[in-house]
Amino acid sequence: MLSEVEFVIEQWSCPLPLRDYPRIVMGHGGGGSLSAELIENLFVPAFRNDDLEAMADSTVLTLPAGRIAFSTDAYVVHPLFFPGGSIGELAVHGTCNDLSMSGARPLYLSASFILEEGLEMKTLAAIVDRMAQAARDAGVRIVTGDTKVVERGHADGCYITTAGIGVVMTDHPPAPSKAKVGDVVLVSGTLGDHGMTVMSRRENLSFETVLESDSAALHPLVEAMLAASGQVHVLRDPTRGGLATSLNEIAQSSRVGIRIDETALPVRPAVASACEILGMDPVYIANEGKLVAIVAPEDAERVLQVMRANPLGHAAAIIGEVVADHRGTLVERTRFGATRILPLQIGEQLPRIC
Amino acid sequence: MLSEVEFVIEQWSCPLPLRDYPRIVMGHGGGGSLSAELIENLFVPAFRNDDLEAMADSTVLTLPAGRIAFSTDAYVVHPLFFPGGSIGELAVHGTCNDLSMSGARPLYLSASFILEEGLEMKTLAAIVDRMAQAARDAGVRIVTGDTKVVERGHADGCYITTAGIGVVMTDHPPAPSKAKVGDVVLVSGTLGDHGMTVMSRRENLSFETVLESDSAALHPLVEAMLAASGQVHVLRDPTRGGLATSLNEIAQSSRVGIRIDETALPVRPAVASACEILGMDPVYIANEGKLVAIVAPEDAERVLQVMRANPLGHAAAIIGEVVADHRGTLVERTRFGATRILPLQIGEQLPRIC
Repeated sequence: MLSEVEFVIEQWSCPLPLRDYPRIVMGHGGGGSLSAELIENLFVPAFRNDDLEAMADSTVLTLPAGRIAFSTDAYVVHPLFFPGGSIGELAVHGTCNDLSMSGARPLYLSASFILEEGLEMKTLAAIVDRMAQAARDAGVRIVTGDTKVVERGHADGCYITTAGIGVVMTDHPPAPSKAKVGDVVLVSGTLGDHGMTVMSRRENLSFETVLESDSAALHPLVEAMLAASGQVHVLRDPTRGGLATSLNEIAQSSRVGIRIDETALPVRPAVASACEILGMDPVYIANEGKLVAIVAPEDAERVLQVMRANPLGHAAAIIGEVVADHRGTLVERTRFGATRILPLQIGEQLPRIC
Repeated sequence: MLSEVEFVIEQWSCPLPLRDYPRIVMGHGGGGSLSAELIENLFVPAFRNDDLEAMADSTVLTLPAGRIAFSTDAYVVHPLFFPGGSIGELAVHGTCNDLSMSGARPLYLSASFILEEGLEMKTLAAIVDRMAQAARDAGVRIVTGDTKVVERGHADGCYITTAGIGVVMTDHPPAPSKAKVGDVVLVSGTLGDHGMTVMSRRENLSFETVLESDSAALHPLVEAMLAASGQVHVLRDPTRGGLATSLNEIAQSSRVGIRIDETALPVRPAVASACEILGMDPVYIANEGKLVAIVAPEDAERVLQVMRANPLGHAAAIIGEVVADHRGTLVERTRFGATRILPLQIGEQLPRIC
C-alpha cells in the first residue's frame, strides 16, 4: 500500500517534455533547453503568479512604503518527506516565520534548488507542488528562482534555499534584544512536534500515537498579537535547538535572566514519551510552527487570549518570566521544585531537522 | 610552492574559539553554541555592517521609495577556487549582476551556506573573506544569512545561495521581451573567459597564456549605460550557456530574430585556442563579468562609447542586430561568409561552472 506521500507522488501527471526524463540529469541545471523545460513545465505552472518572470534574471516588484524585513534559510531536512510536511512546506514556512518574527508580513519569496543528478522527477514535482500550496495558503508569492544540478553523490536529493521579503507591520518591531525584566514569556503551542516527527521517521521509530510536524506559517498569529498589544518585545520561532536555544539567545542579547516552569510547558504526551525513551528534552527539540513571545506583563493575559483564539495558537501558554537574576542565562523550575540551568548546547541533538 | 589561493588560505589567522575546530563539524549547523561561534568569529567580522543582525531571524531595512528588483542564485562551482576568483566572488557578483540586468542598483544580499562536514575551516574562511571583499568592492551589504551542515559525502565542500535586493534606477527597466527589430546587439567584452578558466583548472589543462575568470559586478557599467540612453531595451549577463543561450532566450521572449557576426565577437586568443582544442564554441561558454545589451540603433554608438570608457566594458563591441527574419532564432554569419543557426543547447558543456 502506498503511503500518503507516495500516493501524492504517484498522482503527479508529468507534462510531455519532462516525461522523457524520469530523473534529474546534469543538463537540467545547465541553462539550456532542458533547464527551460523544467522551468516552463514544472516551476512556472506550480508557482504561477503575475510577478514570476521565468526567463528574466530578476523580478521587478513594487513594495508598499515603509520598512522591509529580509531573511534567508537553507533547507536540508532528511528525509525529504515526513508526516505533516516535506522540505517544500518547510522552505516556505521557515522563511515566512523568520520574517514575521521581525514583525513583518511576508510578501515575496525566492526559491533556489540544488538537485542531485538522479533525483526522481516525480519527487521533485511533489516537493514543488507542496511548496506552491504552502505559498498559496500563506499568501506569499514565489517570484524568482534558480536551479543547479550536482553530480550523483554530491548532494542528498534536494536542498532548497528560500529568501523572503516582508513589510514591517509595526513602528516598534520585536527584536531579540528587547526583553525587559518583568516581561512574561509565552509559547504558542506544544513543543518538539517537528523534531520528534522527523527523528522518528528517520530512525523508523513508531509510537502509539502518530507524531506529526507542526510546520506552519505563523504571520496570521503574529498580526493578531501585534494588533492586540504594542508591547510584544520579542518574537522567535524556536527551530533548531528548540525553545531553550531561542531563550538563551534572547537572554544573552537582552542581557536578562529568563526563568521558565517545566510544569507550564505544553508538550504532547507522544512527544514527551518519545523524548523520554530517547533521552531527549522537548525544550531542545525543533519546532516549525510555534513561536515564543516576550511581552510586557500588563499585556500578557490579553496577548494569551488572542493567541488561544487563533488556530495557530490554541494551545498557547504562559511559561515563564524575564528576571534580573542570572543575566544571560536560562533556568527552569523543574516539576520537582528544583532549579536547573538550561545552557546553550554545543551542537544539535538532531542534525538536518530543517 | 603555494599557489595564490593556498597562500591566502594559509594567511588566515583563526580566532581562538574556532581554532579548536580546524574542520566543519555537524554542530556548526546545529543552532547551538558552535553555530554562534561560527557566526560571531567568522561571518560577522567579515561581513560587518550596521544592518547585519547576527542573532535575529531577519533584518529590517529601509529602502528608498520606488520599485525593487529581487533575485537569487545557487552557486555550486567546482573547484571552489580558480584563477581570478572563487565561489565567494561568484556568489556576490552573480546575484548583483542578475539585479543590474533589470536596471537595478544592488543594495543588499543574503548569504546561505550549505557546508559539508569536514570542510577545512581555513577554506571556508578564505571563501567568506573573498565574498566580503567582493561585497565591499561592489558597494552591497550582506545583511542576513544562514548556515547548514550536511554529513560528509552529502555535499561537495561548500554551496552558497545568495539572494539580492536592488532599487530599479529607470522608469523603463530593460527586460528580455523588449528587443525590437532594428535594434543593435552589443557585448561588453571578451567571451568565454570564466568558463574556460574553470574548465582548464578542473581538468588540469595548461595553456601558454594564463586564463583568468572575468568575475565582476557590472552595475557601475549598467548605470553608465542607462544614463547615456533611455533605449537600452534588454540587458543579460551571459552566464551558463554563454552568449548564444542568452540571445536565444531573448529571441524567443521578444519574438524576433537575432543575427550576430562571428568576426565581430571579442574572444581572447587563449580562450579561442583552448576552445579549438576542446571542440567548444566560445559563444556557448559561461561569462561572469560580461553583459549583452540590445539597444535602439540611434543610441548604439553612444552606448558603445560609454561602455568602452568604463573599465568593465573597455573591450565592448557591436556584434549583431535584431531582425524580422527567423523569429525566435539566433543565427551567426561565420567568418567564411556562411550563415548557421546557433540553437539553444540541451544542457551545458561545462557543468557546475557557477
